[in-house]
Amino acid sequence: MTPLRFALTPGEPAGIGPDLCLLLSRSAQPHALIAIASRELLEQRAVELGLAIRLIDVDPARLPDTPAPAASLYVWDTPLRAAAKSGQLDSLNADYVLETLTRAGQGCLDGLFAGMITAPVHKGVINEAGIAFSGHTEFLADLTATRQVVMMLATRGLRVALVTTHLPLKDVAAAITPDRLQRVSRILHADLVNKFGIAQPRILVCGLNPHAGEGGHLGREEIEVIEPTLEGLRAEGLDLVGPLPADTLFTPKHLEHCDAVLAMYHDQGLPVLKYKGFGAAVNVTLGLPIIRTSVDHGTALDLAGSGRIDCGSLEVALETAYQMAAAQQRGQ
Amino acid sequence: MTPLRFALTPGEPAGIGPDLCLLLSRSAQPHALIAIASRELLEQRAVELGLAIRLIDVDPARLPDTPAPAASLYVWDTPLRAAAKSGQLDSLNADYVLETLTRAGQGCLDGLFAGMITAPVHKGVINEAGIAFSGHTEFLADLTATRQVVMMLATRGLRVALVTTHLPLKDVAAAITPDRLQRVSRILHADLVNKFGIAQPRILVCGLNPHAGEGGHLGREEIEVIEPTLEGLRAEGLDLVGPLPADTLFTPKHLEHCDAVLAMYHDQGLPVLKYKGFGAAVNVTLGLPIIRTSVDHGTALDLAGSGRIDCGSLEVALETAYQMAAAQQRGQ
Repeated sequence: MTPLRFALTPGEPAGIGPDLCLLLSRSAQPHALIAIASRELLEQRAVELGLAIRLIDVDPARLPDTPAPAASLYVWDTPLRAAAKSGQLDSLNADYVLETLTRAGQGCLDGLFAGMITAPVHKGVINEAGIAFSGHTEFLADLTATRQVVMMLATRGLRVALVTTHLPLKDVAAAITPDRLQRVSRILHADLVNKFGIAQPRILVCGLNPHAGEGGHLGREEIEVIEPTLEGLRAEGLDLVGPLPADTLFTPKHLEHCDAVLAMYHDQGLPVLKYKGFGAAVNVTLGLPIIRTSVDHGTALDLAGSGRIDCGSLEVALETAYQMAAAQQRGQ
Repeated sequence: MTPLRFALTPGEPAGIGPDLCLLLSRSAQPHALIAIASRELLEQRAVELGLAIRLIDVDPARLPDTPAPAASLYVWDTPLRAAAKSGQLDSLNADYVLETLTRAGQGCLDGLFAGMITAPVHKGVINEAGIAFSGHTEFLADLTATRQVVMMLATRGLRVALVTTHLPLKDVAAAITPDRLQRVSRILHADLVNKFGIAQPRILVCGLNPHAGEGGHLGREEIEVIEPTLEGLRAEGLDLVGPLPADTLFTPKHLEHCDAVLAMYHDQGLPVLKYKGFGAAVNVTLGLPIIRTSVDHGTALDLAGSGRIDCGSLEVALETAYQMAAAQQRGQ
């Protein structure tokens, strides 16, 4: 088994991403973990937090294979474009943020990294800089020339993938097409097999309508779109249960016997996942040719530099990326 | 303080409703609780379950004021139209089911009962009998000539009310009108004050769209409908927080400081409530001139007569009705 090495991007320099990376580095990681960030930013933030973390510069041509010791962090220095101040967005640094993501994503494609873990970026300030940017997921899909990605959130004991993500609610029903449902289900199934090492994943599928349409009384998409599409996918070998009513699916009786839930839209699946996994949920992008996990929270600008933050989500994001990379390596 | 007396309807005779009422009667209740049901049905089901519960006939003109002792149940005998068999629906008994509801509801209006608690009915078999029936809630709204009711589910530590209930998802966005949002919010506020005894209830309101629309990027209903409507309601004295993203609202930080959540639609609010309150959630109909609570589950025809059922939801339904009646009495 070759050593596994991972990239960590602290994201928006004015947010809590740099803080999280530093706080995390108080303990040693099980693998080599390379922060792709401004060394100067990390130094300043460490002073602000009163943390003694040794920053170890690395050369991208000779990246380390062994973990950094406790109280240290490998840094692939990526200079800021303007000085960063905790809590104060500056659109001059949009290019910096995207460069860290490009280095990490391209590094995964090139085999330098077994996966990348991302702290939050701030979409608004990147757009303000005149760069069209709708999020990490879309950026990495473009970088890796991936047509369809699937957003999945996970916490210990529950994984929820979404058929549609950031759509106005009024547009959701029309977006649940056989084609989209097929593409998303196949990616979810394939990634559970290949990246999570689950030989025969069982997936519970939510209906679109309340009570999964109640036999057509509360909507007909289950009958006309979802059921026939699932039937076709079952014939391909996918183990899909449903469509089930979302308000009874998320109960122990059902969840104990599945590997993931496929929800039709954002607010059907994520409130319960974030309730269950409060402070310890991770966002995983499926369908990419690389492994990418992310924290499930935002930049929390008001808390940057304060130290009053919880590393729970980043810890689960790292743990998940490590597990996925190990499963993928075993499967190869 | 006058003694409080409550009505209990076991609902569909082929389902688990009669079983729940009998299992519950092993212990004494704190108040007089009158089952409005067929005595014969309860006798037979008790034999089937191997339960020795004494059934005490009551005269509706002289209802008891003190609780029945443990291992006994007051019964206002309401004859079946056809023999009932566990697990086998018979549309001949649709009239019987509706008569039990009418007796309970009218009894509440007449002051015989401080509230009613309902076990599940089976909509399908009532419709099969040629009777238009879309549920307890609508039936009781008609009986009490109530224009707008609000469905609220509750479990220990969380209450979730819904702006829309059993609508196809594609119709939800258009149904979120200022008028409906006003009516629902006012009822929720008033009932939290009058029926739950909360002097100044704080209500967290979900957005309609993911991330509550993210400033208009993911839908404009928050900006055009929800925010201005909430602003107007605040001027009336309602304490409404939001619109908030549903996936961050259901976390301890927010929930600790509220008395209820107002969700825009069924699958936005109920999965997390039923996840949290598994087996111990109650359905409360707000806006009625009477107190009505219900179990949150169905008839479970396959489990009728088996004894393998959990009374958790019925227990919370009773507990909630008792608390509401006491709060209402204190407020008068």
